[in-house]
Amino acid sequence: MVKSPLAPATFPELPDIAGITLATAPAAIKYSGRDDLLLVVFSEQTTASGVFTQSLTASAPVMVCRDNLKTPVARALLVNSGNANAFTGKTGDKHCARSQQLVAGLVGCDPKDVFLASTGVIGELLPMEKFEEAVPGLNRNLGSANWRKAANAIMTTDTFSKGASVTTNIGGRDVIINGIAKGSGMIAPDMATMLAFCFTDAKLPSKLLQQLLEEANHTSFNAITVDSDTSTSDTCMLFATGKAENNECVCIDEPALQDFRAALNGLMLNLAIQVVRDGEGASKLIQVNVTGAQSDKSARIIANAIANSPLVKTAIAGEDANWGRVVMAVGKSGQCADRDSLQIKMGGVLITQNGEVVKDYDEQLVAQHLKQQEIIVDVDVGVGSGEFTVWTCDLTHGYISINADYRS
Amino acid sequence: MVKSPLAPATFPELPDIAGITLATAPAAIKYSGRDDLLLVVFSEQTTASGVFTQSLTASAPVMVCRDNLKTPVARALLVNSGNANAFTGKTGDKHCARSQQLVAGLVGCDPKDVFLASTGVIGELLPMEKFEEAVPGLNRNLGSANWRKAANAIMTTDTFSKGASVTTNIGGRDVIINGIAKGSGMIAPDMATMLAFCFTDAKLPSKLLQQLLEEANHTSFNAITVDSDTSTSDTCMLFATGKAENNECVCIDEPALQDFRAALNGLMLNLAIQVVRDGEGASKLIQVNVTGAQSDKSARIIANAIANSPLVKTAIAGEDANWGRVVMAVGKSGQCADRDSLQIKMGGVLITQNGEVVKDYDEQLVAQHLKQQEIIVDVDVGVGSGEFTVWTCDLTHGYISINADYRS
Repeated sequence: MVKSPLAPATFPELPDIAGITLATAPAAIKYSGRDDLLLVVFSEQTTASGVFTQSLTASAPVMVCRDNLKTPVARALLVNSGNANAFTGKTGDKHCARSQQLVAGLVGCDPKDVFLASTGVIGELLPMEKFEEAVPGLNRNLGSANWRKAANAIMTTDTFSKGASVTTNIGGRDVIINGIAKGSGMIAPDMATMLAFCFTDAKLPSKLLQQLLEEANHTSFNAITVDSDTSTSDTCMLFATGKAENNECVCIDEPALQDFRAALNGLMLNLAIQVVRDGEGASKLIQVNVTGAQSDKSARIIANAIANSPLVKTAIAGEDANWGRVVMAVGKSGQCADRDSLQIKMGGVLITQNGEVVKDYDEQLVAQHLKQQEIIVDVDVGVGSGEFTVWTCDLTHGYISINADYRS
Repeated sequence: MVKSPLAPATFPELPDIAGITLATAPAAIKYSGRDDLLLVVFSEQTTASGVFTQSLTASAPVMVCRDNLKTPVARALLVNSGNANAFTGKTGDKHCARSQQLVAGLVGCDPKDVFLASTGVIGELLPMEKFEEAVPGLNRNLGSANWRKAANAIMTTDTFSKGASVTTNIGGRDVIINGIAKGSGMIAPDMATMLAFCFTDAKLPSKLLQQLLEEANHTSFNAITVDSDTSTSDTCMLFATGKAENNECVCIDEPALQDFRAALNGLMLNLAIQVVRDGEGASKLIQVNVTGAQSDKSARIIANAIANSPLVKTAIAGEDANWGRVVMAVGKSGQCADRDSLQIKMGGVLITQNGEVVKDYDEQLVAQHLKQQEIIVDVDVGVGSGEFTVWTCDLTHGYISINADYRS
């Protein structure tokens, strides 16, 4: 698989986080010659939070995680790539229970404190014999893997591994947040998209952790789309080991928490945009800013209508300033918009105003912008003050090539 | 443009309809060397009905037609291809008024009885001087064109012209219904899709005509999708000249009308499927039958989620029985479905049952079916008796090639 032209130059430095040890191993679940299993072991009193796919055909591991969060303590996380354990019926549920048992036995914890995530092919049973063989080895290797190896082990059709780190503080005490993610196709908002795991040494009660995660998720993983298709496995989790021993926070609005809150939002947006940068076949990263909508929610629906439109995405792939397709997408969103005050900019150049094309707008300038890798589309629908930003990529021959023969 | 591999072998025979005369002309609006204007003139007392795009950025001609239908008498219909007169502001409205005036002057009628339709590029002003020049010529040529020429004149990115005809009866009196349509991209349900015009010599009051059209539209043009993108110009109209002098009908359920009703439903479905057969880049026609849903409306949402999924469409393009993507699409639809009784068939072969893949289902048989041009996907979601069928096409390199440089 050729690396996406939009990939960051390098994988960033991710420091160790007190209370977290990592191991990876090759289990040959689908891929050979690479690690495809990741085990993360947490120190006691680690709190957990998560958001998951809204799909009604959610995978077995997603249902396990949802259930585990009723008592949000985490001691381990096991992730495999190559098989989603989705639509595998009761057998899939049993396979999850066995995986939890295997890990719990090694770590010495309650199976309910073991979280699971799987992505890859839908509908095939997990090859449990490979888990039985590889998991004990993982435990022996604990501490041998770094974050980059962890990010590598969870990839499927990804062309580069995705990570981010930030050091911030809570009430003056330094805390670290690390994050890794995977995802390239079957990416659409309205859920935590594909797999993303964030880890911090901050001390945060699980209820607050969940609030922080949901807030950051709304404008990061829930603000990206590659192909409008929603995975059965989407999982985004945040774990906090508490080893930084910051003063206890309770409320999301307290001043001591604001640096952390902003840092988490930034880190998750960074990871989410990395997923779009690895969008299947992507040659351009597209930022769609919608303003002037009736509400933020309405702005989000309009932004998604634009970002998911195959005609808008192919036009940008062809470096064609076909803003008529943006008009079409606004129209099909069904949201309130004033045709006669609709404003569209590409690369900052005002193209339409008062429901008509701007006479003599600088087409050359727009054409130049469209030749870049990062495209900005601004749309003001002229009816209110709602706004939302969505990131997506273009739709190219690469997407068709990748998806017309992924399973075979 | 290469003709779609799914095109019918020939354009069907469409007989004359009493009370209707046709003319076409080359106005070089966008295309040269072909007719791009169609004028249909109706005898007095012709009734009209129409359904239009739900887009909030509807084109100027769509707004004219909606307005005209307040007094649903039709004396003429003028259609151009190559320019949609959409998002052209107040100037676009003025151009419509002038077009109506031009035609009304020639036909000798009220401008309000002149219906208009335009498709093509969005956002460019209509070249009115070309209309001024060509419309009088159209009137001189009246009666010179046949239905095939009419269907040709309204094409844009279509690779073949679309028509259908049926002879039926109302209360024993023979009546004819002819229909022509155009459309290939920017095709999505939730409206009358692109342009379709049906004509009959039946005598039907406009209110009943509108009911008949809406009913047929629901399961024909509103049951197809090429790319989930909704045009600003979608228009589907039905005109009735009354020349067959059948007995007056008033109610859609009266026995004398049932043959006509079934014939109209069949004819419009035929036309709608022709539009899908000309879907941009299409190599396969896909029929998605959803049953067992909570309601017909719910079944329609699920069927559209499957039919609009780029991952399902690329899998079928690749002749890959990747039914996991069908599961994903059901899941993302947000509709009630029972994961543990979901049933999926491809080409009639049962692949999943009770939430799991059927052991030893005949993969060869499914693979053979996927090599055909006409693919059938049956999904039973196991919660009720709602059902709906949607037609779509696959997503191929052809779609990208056509749309990455349509405007330039």
